Amino acid sequence: MTSRKGRKGDRGVIFASPMIIVMQIGAAQEEIDLVADAIRSRGYEPLVLPGQDRVAIGVPASLNNDQRTDLEAVLGAMDGVSKITQTSHPYKLASREFNRTDTSIEVKGVKIGGGSFVVMGGPCSVESYEQFHKAATIVKSSGATILRGGAFKPRTSPYSFQGLAEEGLKILKSVGDETGLVTISEVMSGDMVSLVAEYVDILQIGARSMQNFPLLIEAGKSGKPVFLKRGPAAQIDDFLLAAEYVLNQGNPHVILCERGIIPLDRTYTRNTLDLSAVPVLKEHTHLPVIVDPSHGTGVAKYVTPMAKAAMVVGADGIMVEMHPDPKSALSDGSQALTPDQFLKMMSEMRTLGAALGIVL
Amino acid sequence: MTSRKGRKGDRGVIFASPMIIVMQIGAAQEEIDLVADAIRSRGYEPLVLPGQDRVAIGVPASLNNDQRTDLEAVLGAMDGVSKITQTSHPYKLASREFNRTDTSIEVKGVKIGGGSFVVMGGPCSVESYEQFHKAATIVKSSGATILRGGAFKPRTSPYSFQGLAEEGLKILKSVGDETGLVTISEVMSGDMVSLVAEYVDILQIGARSMQNFPLLIEAGKSGKPVFLKRGPAAQIDDFLLAAEYVLNQGNPHVILCERGIIPLDRTYTRNTLDLSAVPVLKEHTHLPVIVDPSHGTGVAKYVTPMAKAAMVVGADGIMVEMHPDPKSALSDGSQALTPDQFLKMMSEMRTLGAALGIVL
Amino acid sequence: MTSRKGRKGDRGVIFASPMIIVMQIGAAQEEIDLVADAIRSRGYEPLVLPGQDRVAIGVPASLNNDQRTDLEAVLGAMDGVSKITQTSHPYKLASREFNRTDTSIEVKGVKIGGGSFVVMGGPCSVESYEQFHKAATIVKSSGATILRGGAFKPRTSPYSFQGLAEEGLKILKSVGDETGLVTISEVMSGDMVSLVAEYVDILQIGARSMQNFPLLIEAGKSGKPVFLKRGPAAQIDDFLLAAEYVLNQGNPHVILCERGIIPLDRTYTRNTLDLSAVPVLKEHTHLPVIVDPSHGTGVAKYVTPMAKAAMVVGADGIMVEMHPDPKSALSDGSQALTPDQFLKMMSEMRTLGAALGIVL
Amino acid sequence: MTSRKGRKGDRGVIFASPMIIVMQIGAAQEEIDLVADAIRSRGYEPLVLPGQDRVAIGVPASLNNDQRTDLEAVLGAMDGVSKITQTSHPYKLASREFNRTDTSIEVKGVKIGGGSFVVMGGPCSVESYEQFHKAATIVKSSGATILRGGAFKPRTSPYSFQGLAEEGLKILKSVGDETGLVTISEVMSGDMVSLVAEYVDILQIGARSMQNFPLLIEAGKSGKPVFLKRGPAAQIDDFLLAAEYVLNQGNPHVILCERGIIPLDRTYTRNTLDLSAVPVLKEHTHLPVIVDPSHGTGVAKYVTPMAKAAMVVGADGIMVEMHPDPKSALSDGSQALTPDQFLKMMSEMRTLGAALGIVL
Repeated sequence: MTSRKGRKGDRGVIFASPMIIVMQIGAAQEEIDLVADAIRSRGYEPLVLPGQDRVAIGVPASLNNDQRTDLEAVLGAMDGVSKITQTSHPYKLASREFNRTDTSIEVKGVKIGGGSFVVMGGPCSVESYEQFHKAATIVKSSGATILRGGAFKPRTSPYSFQGLAEEGLKILKSVGDETGLVTISEVMSGDMVSLVAEYVDILQIGARSMQNFPLLIEAGKSGKPVFLKRGPAAQIDDFLLAAEYVLNQGNPHVILCERGIIPLDRTYTRNTLDLSAVPVLKEHTHLPVIVDPSHGTGVAKYVTPMAKAAMVVGADGIMVEMHPDPKSALSDGSQALTPDQFLKMMSEMRTLGAALGIVL
Repeated sequence: MTSRKGRKGDRGVIFASPMIIVMQIGAAQEEIDLVADAIRSRGYEPLVLPGQDRVAIGVPASLNNDQRTDLEAVLGAMDGVSKITQTSHPYKLASREFNRTDTSIEVKGVKIGGGSFVVMGGPCSVESYEQFHKAATIVKSSGATILRGGAFKPRTSPYSFQGLAEEGLKILKSVGDETGLVTISEVMSGDMVSLVAEYVDILQIGARSMQNFPLLIEAGKSGKPVFLKRGPAAQIDDFLLAAEYVLNQGNPHVILCERGIIPLDRTYTRNTLDLSAVPVLKEHTHLPVIVDPSHGTGVAKYVTPMAKAAMVVGADGIMVEMHPDPKSALSDGSQALTPDQFLKMMSEMRTLGAALGIVL
Repeated sequence: MTSRKGRKGDRGVIFASPMIIVMQIGAAQEEIDLVADAIRSRGYEPLVLPGQDRVAIGVPASLNNDQRTDLEAVLGAMDGVSKITQTSHPYKLASREFNRTDTSIEVKGVKIGGGSFVVMGGPCSVESYEQFHKAATIVKSSGATILRGGAFKPRTSPYSFQGLAEEGLKILKSVGDETGLVTISEVMSGDMVSLVAEYVDILQIGARSMQNFPLLIEAGKSGKPVFLKRGPAAQIDDFLLAAEYVLNQGNPHVILCERGIIPLDRTYTRNTLDLSAVPVLKEHTHLPVIVDPSHGTGVAKYVTPMAKAAMVVGADGIMVEMHPDPKSALSDGSQALTPDQFLKMMSEMRTLGAALGIVL
Repeated sequence: MTSRKGRKGDRGVIFASPMIIVMQIGAAQEEIDLVADAIRSRGYEPLVLPGQDRVAIGVPASLNNDQRTDLEAVLGAMDGVSKITQTSHPYKLASREFNRTDTSIEVKGVKIGGGSFVVMGGPCSVESYEQFHKAATIVKSSGATILRGGAFKPRTSPYSFQGLAEEGLKILKSVGDETGLVTISEVMSGDMVSLVAEYVDILQIGARSMQNFPLLIEAGKSGKPVFLKRGPAAQIDDFLLAAEYVLNQGNPHVILCERGIIPLDRTYTRNTLDLSAVPVLKEHTHLPVIVDPSHGTGVAKYVTPMAKAAMVVGADGIMVEMHPDPKSALSDGSQALTPDQFLKMMSEMRTLGAALGIVL
């Protein structure tokens, strides 16, 4: 822990890698020399790669992030420079190159990542004790182990239901205690982290908050497991850098969630579930990867097939919205499964898991 | 067949549905009246829906496509009109509402659609008899039934390998004959349809040609099975309208292929395979739906998981690139499976299929 | 103010408009009747629009937002229903239909919106008193009236420069006081609003925070002018709904900023500046619209032409990054203008403005 | 001309530039050596750039496109390789690095590119002699010099108006002759190039045909000026490579057209006009760049502001749809200007041009 804290002090600890400066075609020898000089003046040794029409210059030094940024700005503005190439991923702690073993996070006996397959189920919002207890009972009976429910709801419109706030957290906690299910709920700002952390087992950071950096930092400091949803327009590197914010606070308990990216076509689904992000992420990071087919499609009837596909492509679990009575849901009713649909999905996934050697 | 030909004559035969004209908030009564009059003057009876702040007007008549287009243009330019709402899908022959039974296309004893699961395998390009024959032997031995190989290659750069042209088709045909595999190859323009149709069993229309309308029409006229790839930026309705061009020529043998849409993030994959398009398409059309995880990801190591996911979400088959020696491939080597990888994928898919009750 | 507070109480006050339920082709009469009954049972009178192949049903009642949501969920799940159509914009206070006069916000004698054209200039980050004072002097001498500078920086990587925090705000305030320029700086979370509001004239909410709802609410409560940047993947309606969060707190001083959306092609620009959003916004909202060509392109050499284009399409001003020495900038150096470039841009814009009758 | 023909023979003549192979972090020395050996075995000399955590290897040789593709495939599949970096633009003849002087194309005395500003106006479709002649008269009287009109229409739906075909071309030609306007019309397939070329002065290749390679090649062979529209999902490099297909046939008369890319938000505009593509293109290619604000927005009222913005950012001209009576237009009526709007736009652009020193 001490070393991690220390690490925060010296920003710029990502893996050092060569930087490549690509010169324009026909760049003058003088321009090339000036670039080489600029590199040398900062204490690095340039390596010129001649080409027939174009020259590239490598900087084989160990640059940290700030040095890299500095050098890029300086060289990028010099005459004759065409572009500067990154040769490194910008994240480190999240990288599988940093940690080759899958991270497994254990919460109240439930293991997330590292070979298990978890199911997180429950309604979009905690609406009342009755509604939530009913949902939890179905989740429990299905064999799923994690109970979701929103108390603070990020809603596109200020006129939509905004959640029960702390009252919702209290319901969540008591239902979690009664059923023995692990609980997860969203926190929307850094100053609410300690409050939400009092009541729930896993802190969820929503897709729209993926780059809420003060929130990421507070979630990191809390030490609680953090369930981080990919922003709808976030590239993989940005997603892992968001995780890096949490990890960089000394909190290694980060769970990633693919939940759909902005769609090409909004006619039939709300988002496009990017399933190939699962093997991509599993290759580049050691963190667990969960898929949310409910937000990923926005349509209840597509949830089950996409949930099964998530298992097949190697996800560590799924998060699925289920409501005792979707038609009366105060939010996202159109994507919530009914209890029967949820139980059927669980049964089908168990069959599929059996064929794949996955227990759930 | 006669009736279909007849149908071509009277453009505008899509399902007639009400049209809704939404007025602006605070539209004057006079503006509302003028819109109603314009509707009446064309022989339809307007139905005004009052709202507290805004009025909508329905046109409950049986408009064909041209009448609809005409009316939209006229009303859309009138004062006080906010927008006009389509209440109908723009395609008909491709629609499941038109034909509730799954279309099944039989080619040389191989059934595509209607319950079977087919595998189309082979190299991106036909490069030589030896290369192609070797590939075909592996495809055959794996149990796959359809052999792919490009003779005319659409390449982004004019300096890239453009295919062997008719020479490639000859190789394709003789290897198809020798192995008994059904063959498929791309045709890039309408005037080449008859040539390609001489040699291959299934005409492929590539993603970049999805809206090459003269080609779609010629492919329709040929009567041959047409394998239509979704354009990388095509919405579902545009994709089905492209199919409609073929169907509208009286050729019911259209196979749809999801092959990846333009990606949010080009760092790790070439495209984003839109797997939820499979259940969406299966719901809205009766045509078979194939998934191409090779182009869909552009990366060999992601092909097998995404191929399995395609099966799980309900696709009627997959098209996968395999090359006897991907490192020497003249095109798309980075996404081609090796023979060993292909055979392993087939074995895994067979196991998965067994669990799902799917024979391949 | 009282009435606005009252308005907050009764969520769901957007303009009431008819809702249209589109039935499936071939929906049974019984299904149509059941939908009509469900509507009637909630106290609204359904209006059935017959079509040849398909029926639509209008609900001509005055639904508020929660009633609409409820009805949609209920009807959307009924047999025979194909889709439900929104006929209204979801925002109200931001709407030009609500307020036909352009909103003009006056800050220390500088008018934003309502006919003027303002220029906001300054460095990405406040780095030191010297750097910032130098920048401010150039801004002042150019005739621009608003000074920008970040103290809290949202950075994709935790290893990048994060800003000088309160120390930066102090520099900002004293330089603002010395030069008489209006100041603007970003606030990243709701609990920091009061701190930042102490030091700056205009609160900036960054693109990544556009849907940080707790922040929007606190910014609304502060009563300070709020400069709201469009999220890189935000649709126009979502953007205006984010503004609605601020307005709904009784704070009418909202300034919108188009700053580039996620690009199709990241090779040459960092974002795609969506200039047609300016006339679209000016048509649908009364709020001032500013364009940020610095983030909008991410490349210094494209800033001036795009700034001029912003003026031509009707923006109320621009925000442009300028650094006394871009090569040494701690953040975003590649998109900052040099002082000379900034002065040249101002001169060119003044010439252009003269031709268009715009004073700046 | 001979040399160009010769050039077609040896594919792979793009500018040779170094290739950079980035190794994985912690790649074994043996893996690095094997990559270096593979490079050496192909006759190139590897240059190893050491880094603290990661090594990069440069290939400073003069690779043509096929050699590059080959090497990439081989090395990309080797153990320890993380990625391979392109340091070169893939186009040559279209590149400003190849030809530093702006290309200017003269058609019947009208100069396109090289300093002039041209306006192309006319209806989406040629509908009749009367309609088209009326439109041409307005175009002529406005001072615009190029007359557009579609005879072969690419339509998303087979049920939409498909154009008058050769009949339309005849009308186009006679009206062009009568008015002395330069004419432009779309050709949709390679086998129609010679027919269309008989009647019109400039061949238009539509956005959906941007990668119709047989068409590009035939248009190249024709020697006629080719007006190439950017595909709605085309990246800049792909656009220039499409131009390269035409240029590579020895036809230097290529005019580029930005006409809007796929939108993030389809609610208010049909496409997103990517105006920063204009300065990007002007920097990287010597070919003229025209902007089409009609398709670029899809909405008549946004055409004039975006047309002016196109002039301001440096376009060489605009293409604008105008119809004598938009309400009766058989296609795209909602984006066509009325004659009055067109004349007003021309007058405003002339004023704007005067301020910018641009004559039109």
